[in-house]
Amino acid sequence: MLKLYYARGTCALATHIALEEASAEFEAIRLDFSIGQQRSPQYLAVNPKGRVPALVTPQGVLTETPALLAYVAEIFPNSGLMPLGDAFNCARINSFNAYLCATMHVALAHGQRAPRWADDPAAWASMRAKMPQNAAECCALIEKDMFVGPWVMGEAYTVADPYLFTILGWLKPDRCDITNYPALTEHLQRMRERPAVQRVLARESAD
Amino acid sequence: MLKLYYARGTCALATHIALEEASAEFEAIRLDFSIGQQRSPQYLAVNPKGRVPALVTPQGVLTETPALLAYVAEIFPNSGLMPLGDAFNCARINSFNAYLCATMHVALAHGQRAPRWADDPAAWASMRAKMPQNAAECCALIEKDMFVGPWVMGEAYTVADPYLFTILGWLKPDRCDITNYPALTEHLQRMRERPAVQRVLARESAD
Repeated sequence: MLKLYYARGTCALATHIALEEASAEFEAIRLDFSIGQQRSPQYLAVNPKGRVPALVTPQGVLTETPALLAYVAEIFPNSGLMPLGDAFNCARINSFNAYLCATMHVALAHGQRAPRWADDPAAWASMRAKMPQNAAECCALIEKDMFVGPWVMGEAYTVADPYLFTILGWLKPDRCDITNYPALTEHLQRMRERPAVQRVLARESAD
Repeated sequence: MLKLYYARGTCALATHIALEEASAEFEAIRLDFSIGQQRSPQYLAVNPKGRVPALVTPQGVLTETPALLAYVAEIFPNSGLMPLGDAFNCARINSFNAYLCATMHVALAHGQRAPRWADDPAAWASMRAKMPQNAAECCALIEKDMFVGPWVMGEAYTVADPYLFTILGWLKPDRCDITNYPALTEHLQRMRERPAVQRVLARESAD
């Protein structure tokens, strides 16, 4: 059986939702970042990066959200989470997910995770100060040039949707107000109405 | 015919090499970043992100290196650049490429591209000062936990190889000395010996 390591409030939510949407049999294992469980020797033996998500498969451990999302779509072809065999449209999804991973997640991380990239507290403050501008640029680009609607890629719900939902969920109104982006705001609401999303959110927030 | 937009010294080199390895028919179009061609209205109509690579296909434009690499492997199945149909090993490649894209490329970008994430020159200096430490951590993790050898994924040359070659090519000895990582150093040399790599490097450096 698949095992997904996740932590609350992290990008692992995207893979968690994708597995649930695919009706996969899997075990969700929560790490508590507040006590540094991602740095325990036990977990580093699973994922030397000390991050989540990590997906334990019968063949080995996989990491990195865009790779996990494509993997889930491929091993559960009936889920329809990617148009398998349609190289161009799969690439569109992978491209969207790569943008979220390498640009938008990174932009937002300069708010809370600035110490990754500098040791000087004044530099952290400077990064935090610029974060809202970069977040707004990401939202504007997605809304204007990438999002098709009603789902990210158009009529079909794909693995791009739970990933966008996850990243948008990190936006705080006083830092980047999602209501400035009507299509993204509607997407967030549409996602919250999905039973699979509701089940995963309940599981992640349970004691 | 495919058209690849690239600029010298950028991550577009990875896709450029992958296309050449696949014996693809394509046109390589160079943008000159020193005069801001990536921000021209003509190019923004191709890629609103104002970045490279962008691959123009018969169905539309694709961006983001990990997505382009998987796409090239899929549309040229005889290239053997990914083990198509083997979901786990494709995911390992996508995972490696996602790490390069979202962690290592981002880590190195804090050297030259720090103004993306802060407006204060003192913060740029602080990011630049920490960059070598993060670059070294990426190299160490890849060498110890990700690189199989002789190629990234083992005996098979895949799209992970030109991407690693591209990123490692950005390391400067006084900032992060690749000779500290014997497997990576050997990989760089092994890549330089490939005829497809030599053709692409000659094309990118031609007047």
